[in-house]
Amino acid sequence: MNVVALAGGVGGAKLVDGLSQAIPAEHLTIIVNTGDDFEHMGLKICPDLDTVCYTLAGLANPETGWGRAGETWNTLESLAELGGPTWFQLGDKDLATHLERTRRLRDGQSLSQVTRWFCQMWGIKPKIMPMSDDPIPTRVFTDEGDLPFQDYFVRRQCQPPVKGFRFQGVESSHSAPGVVEALASADLIIICPSNPWVSIDPILAIPEVKAALTFGSESRQVVVAVSPIIGGEVVKGPAAKMFAELGVQPSALAVARHYGAQKAGGLLTGFVLDNLDADQASAIMNLGMGSLVTDTIMRNPGDRFRLAEDVLVFGEKLSNGQQ
Amino acid sequence: MNVVALAGGVGGAKLVDGLSQAIPAEHLTIIVNTGDDFEHMGLKICPDLDTVCYTLAGLANPETGWGRAGETWNTLESLAELGGPTWFQLGDKDLATHLERTRRLRDGQSLSQVTRWFCQMWGIKPKIMPMSDDPIPTRVFTDEGDLPFQDYFVRRQCQPPVKGFRFQGVESSHSAPGVVEALASADLIIICPSNPWVSIDPILAIPEVKAALTFGSESRQVVVAVSPIIGGEVVKGPAAKMFAELGVQPSALAVARHYGAQKAGGLLTGFVLDNLDADQASAIMNLGMGSLVTDTIMRNPGDRFRLAEDVLVFGEKLSNGQQ
Repeated sequence: MNVVALAGGVGGAKLVDGLSQAIPAEHLTIIVNTGDDFEHMGLKICPDLDTVCYTLAGLANPETGWGRAGETWNTLESLAELGGPTWFQLGDKDLATHLERTRRLRDGQSLSQVTRWFCQMWGIKPKIMPMSDDPIPTRVFTDEGDLPFQDYFVRRQCQPPVKGFRFQGVESSHSAPGVVEALASADLIIICPSNPWVSIDPILAIPEVKAALTFGSESRQVVVAVSPIIGGEVVKGPAAKMFAELGVQPSALAVARHYGAQKAGGLLTGFVLDNLDADQASAIMNLGMGSLVTDTIMRNPGDRFRLAEDVLVFGEKLSNGQQ
Repeated sequence: MNVVALAGGVGGAKLVDGLSQAIPAEHLTIIVNTGDDFEHMGLKICPDLDTVCYTLAGLANPETGWGRAGETWNTLESLAELGGPTWFQLGDKDLATHLERTRRLRDGQSLSQVTRWFCQMWGIKPKIMPMSDDPIPTRVFTDEGDLPFQDYFVRRQCQPPVKGFRFQGVESSHSAPGVVEALASADLIIICPSNPWVSIDPILAIPEVKAALTFGSESRQVVVAVSPIIGGEVVKGPAAKMFAELGVQPSALAVARHYGAQKAGGLLTGFVLDNLDADQASAIMNLGMGSLVTDTIMRNPGDRFRLAEDVLVFGEKLSNGQQ
C-alpha cells in the first residue's frame, strides 16, 4: 500500500512519525506545507519542513514538538546584546539547517534537492517533499491588514482576528518534482491533523495538486483526514481560533465540512475524529464520508504509532469499500 | 594628545586594548583593516574588526586572541552533520555578530554605521572605524594562483608560497567617514604590531589615507610602528613567512624598511622593537627614524598597558623633537 501524507507542522510531524514506524519507508511519501516559509536575517526558513524532518530524524525537541532536542541559544542571546531581532527563536543547532539550506539554494539547488540531501544526511528513510519549489508565501488577512504568515503567527502570536488567507503566487506555481506522481500512485492519502487553513489548504491550492487529487465523485482515491480539532479545541496552534473568527463553530465536524466529502464534490472519503467528539460521527457520515472514532491525541511515540495503525486500517477498509 | 592606531587582528587588538587603558577614549581612534573581510554562507564577516571590537569589549577569547570567550560550537557541529562548510570556524556567539551585521548592511547601513552601533551596544568607548565602507578584498598571489585572502589564510593555512598581494578596487575606494579627519588631527599615529603586508598595507593603500599621511619629509606627523617581528619570527600569523617568500630576511629591521623613514620619503618617524632585537636598533636609526627598544611581547593585560605607555611616551618625545 502506497501512502502519501500531507502535513504541516507539529501535529502532522507526529502522525507522520507514527506512519514511518507502521509502514516500510519506500511506501511512504510526505508532502509538506511550505506556505509558512520565510526569509529571516537573510536565511531561508522552512518551519514545517524542519519540524517534519527533525521529528523523523529523531532530532526534534520532545517538549515543544518543534526545534531541536538539546538546543542551545547562544546566538540568539548574543543577537539580543546587539539589539538584533529576537522575535523568531533561532536555536544554535537549528541555525545550521537554515544556513546550509540558504547556501545551497543560493548555489542554485532547488528546495526539493536540498530537502533530499538533508534527509540523506539525517538518515531519514521515507521520501519528504516540499509541496513546491516555488515560494508560495501565505498572507493572513486580519483586522489589522494583510500580514506575512510568520508576522501573524510568531511576532503577533495569532492575536489579530483573521478574515481570510491568500497563498501568494499559487495560481502560477508548480508542485515539487515527484508530488503529482506520488499522489497518482497513492493507495491512501492521509491529511494529517494539521491546521486546515494554513497548513493543508496551501498544499491543496497548488493547481497540479488539485488536479492530481481529482476532487469529486469520479475519484477512486481514498483520502482520509485526521481532525486537528478535539473537543472544540486544537492541541496546538490557532486552527480553532481561525474557524471561530471566520464564523464557524470549531469542531471535528467543521473540519470535515471544510474539506468536504468526495461524494459531494469535496476531497474526503473518510474522517478520523477523537473519542471526545464521538457525538459528531453521524453528522460527519451524513456529509458522505466514512468515519473512525478513536483516541487521536498523541502524547508519546506509542500514541503516534497506534493512531497511524488505526488510520491505515481505516483507509484499507475504505479502499475495500467497507466501512 | 590625539592618537590614531592602525590595526589588523590579534596583535593590533592587544596594543589597542593597552592604548584604551592608557589614554582617554575621546582621544583614541582605531582604524581597522577590512581587506580580509569576506562573505561566507551569505554572511559578511569582518575578522579584524571583530577581533578589535571583541577585545575592547572584553568579549574576546583570552586563549586564541580571536573569537569570543566562552564560545560554543553547536551550529558548526550541526553544519558538519549536513555536510556544510566547516573550514571557517563559526562560533555560536560570533555568528550573531555576522548575522546582525549582514542584516543591517542589507538594510542599507554602511559598515561604519554598523560598527558604530555594535561599539555602542558592546560599551566600547574609543572610536573604531573600518578603513573603508567599500569592499577592498585582499587577493594573495601564490605559486598556486591568485587566492582570496581567507582561502589562503584559513582554508590553505598560509601554505602556498606568496608572490605578492592585490587590494582589489583600492584605487577607486574611499576611506570610511572620519578616517581622514582622525588622521589629520592626530598628534601620534601608531602602526600596531600587525602584519605589514595584509593588515597595514591595505589601509595605507587607500588613496585618501595615503594623502592624509603625507608621506615624506615635509610631513610633521609623528608616525610610530611597533614591530610584529621579534627575533625573526612573529608572535602569530604569516608575516615572517611572507617576508621570506618575498625574498627578504624577516626581522624588525625589515619591517622598518618596509614602511620606510619619513625623512627618506617613507612613513615612519619612529620604530619600536623588542629587546631581543636590540642589535638592530642602530641600523633602524640609520634609516632615518627614531627607535625604542623595549619588551614588546604582550602576554597579559598588564603587558598591553605597559607597551602602550612606552609607545605613547616614545611618540611624545618624537613630537617634541627629542629622542
